[in-house]
Amino acid sequence: MIIVGERINGNTKRVRDAIIARDAGFIVEQARLQAEAGADYIDANAGTDPAREPEDMVWLVETVQSAVEQPVCVDSANPAALQAGLEAHRGQALVNSMSAEGERLEPLLDLVKKHEARVVGLTLDDSGLPKTADRRVAIAKKLAAAADEAGVARENLFIDPLTRAVGVESDQGAAFLDAVAPIRESLPGVHVICGLSNISFQMPARRLLNRTFLAMAMARGMDAAIVDPLDGGLMAVVCAGRALLGQDDMCMGYIQAYREGDLEQWA
Amino acid sequence: MIIVGERINGNTKRVRDAIIARDAGFIVEQARLQAEAGADYIDANAGTDPAREPEDMVWLVETVQSAVEQPVCVDSANPAALQAGLEAHRGQALVNSMSAEGERLEPLLDLVKKHEARVVGLTLDDSGLPKTADRRVAIAKKLAAAADEAGVARENLFIDPLTRAVGVESDQGAAFLDAVAPIRESLPGVHVICGLSNISFQMPARRLLNRTFLAMAMARGMDAAIVDPLDGGLMAVVCAGRALLGQDDMCMGYIQAYREGDLEQWA
Repeated sequence: MIIVGERINGNTKRVRDAIIARDAGFIVEQARLQAEAGADYIDANAGTDPAREPEDMVWLVETVQSAVEQPVCVDSANPAALQAGLEAHRGQALVNSMSAEGERLEPLLDLVKKHEARVVGLTLDDSGLPKTADRRVAIAKKLAAAADEAGVARENLFIDPLTRAVGVESDQGAAFLDAVAPIRESLPGVHVICGLSNISFQMPARRLLNRTFLAMAMARGMDAAIVDPLDGGLMAVVCAGRALLGQDDMCMGYIQAYREGDLEQWA
Repeated sequence: MIIVGERINGNTKRVRDAIIARDAGFIVEQARLQAEAGADYIDANAGTDPAREPEDMVWLVETVQSAVEQPVCVDSANPAALQAGLEAHRGQALVNSMSAEGERLEPLLDLVKKHEARVVGLTLDDSGLPKTADRRVAIAKKLAAAADEAGVARENLFIDPLTRAVGVESDQGAAFLDAVAPIRESLPGVHVICGLSNISFQMPARRLLNRTFLAMAMARGMDAAIVDPLDGGLMAVVCAGRALLGQDDMCMGYIQAYREGDLEQWA
């Protein structure tokens, strides 16, 4: 499992204030805490006005990379911010995100290719949010075909089949889960990722739903997730899931996490 | 999800003492607690010497049925105890278990058919415990063919693909999980069940592994489990899993469980 730590997001007030104030100490702390908790990428979303977002993104990327070894997940809906973030980044970044909507897919893939980056592709096109597993798989194939065309390697493509709230539409958990294996089987080499928390929107006891869904998606072949790595219960499920899926040789990672005291309170 | 409550098992000393002493109060309490916690079947395993086990099983079945509406899962490796238990049982019992080993499969299926009972079939034959998913599926097909032959309906057959300890062999979680969907798809109508706890044998923080594995197996199509329904964390995962798989219309069961205070501590 590849873990993308989601805590540095300017859409939350505390992070936004830190970005505006250039409070590097706060950003460095968030990056370090997430890296120590097991993040493989540190997401950076400035969430500021489009006019200043590219400059904010550069500052975020440089600040995170000054503190941790982990590469940054450069997160924006603004192509100029993505470009600025990629130009500032050392090593292989992850771009979050692209979709099959409108005319922006090809230029974005060209940018990803130019920087030899990796990219999250949302299964979203001009027909809107997909409801069925089949639609998710069909859009994933469109994204992969465009990535092939742009010369972006399959291993650098992360498909996000988009979680939708089960509290609003009861069939949306199954529709997501049923898309995962067909995507990985029909597009060898691609990864499957998601942001978990939409699944539990408007429901009580959300963390229980998020954790259970993470285990379920791992069992179906999802191999990456955008989560808060400081959520100990969630990371305990990731650790258990790796052991149960044979991704943790001799379960040594699980046993080590237990010895370090990371699992007891979740068992 | 069909939940078989496993607490009345004479292989534990407290239960064994209650059986020997004909302590109906203790057995009734265990049956009621499990029924209230959501068990669909109450497992009854006398675990006593073969000579007295049939009589003990009759007492267990009658004692459980005096207390709760739920049918009994008549649990023994002793054909005489299974027969006595089925004869004493009102309504449709579940028999736990049969395997494809030796010569006992056909007479046991005839007994199941005679009583119009349901039965758990272990994917175990004379070649021993299966290691691969393919072997599990192959033995499941043998069991289903024998059930067909005996006139036992597919919906009355529960295949147990047998969990083996991931702490001993790292690939055994995946081997179990990879068997579930092929069994359900190739044998329409059959259920898939398991006893969870072997998966975490010799590992620390076992309940975390058991709960995570339950979510994973549900996501692959397992629709029954033999568990302790008084394990609140495990039952919270069952409740979340139902909501996430679209088995809980409008998530009303989940919301109700939350209102009753059953989920908060696990979220």
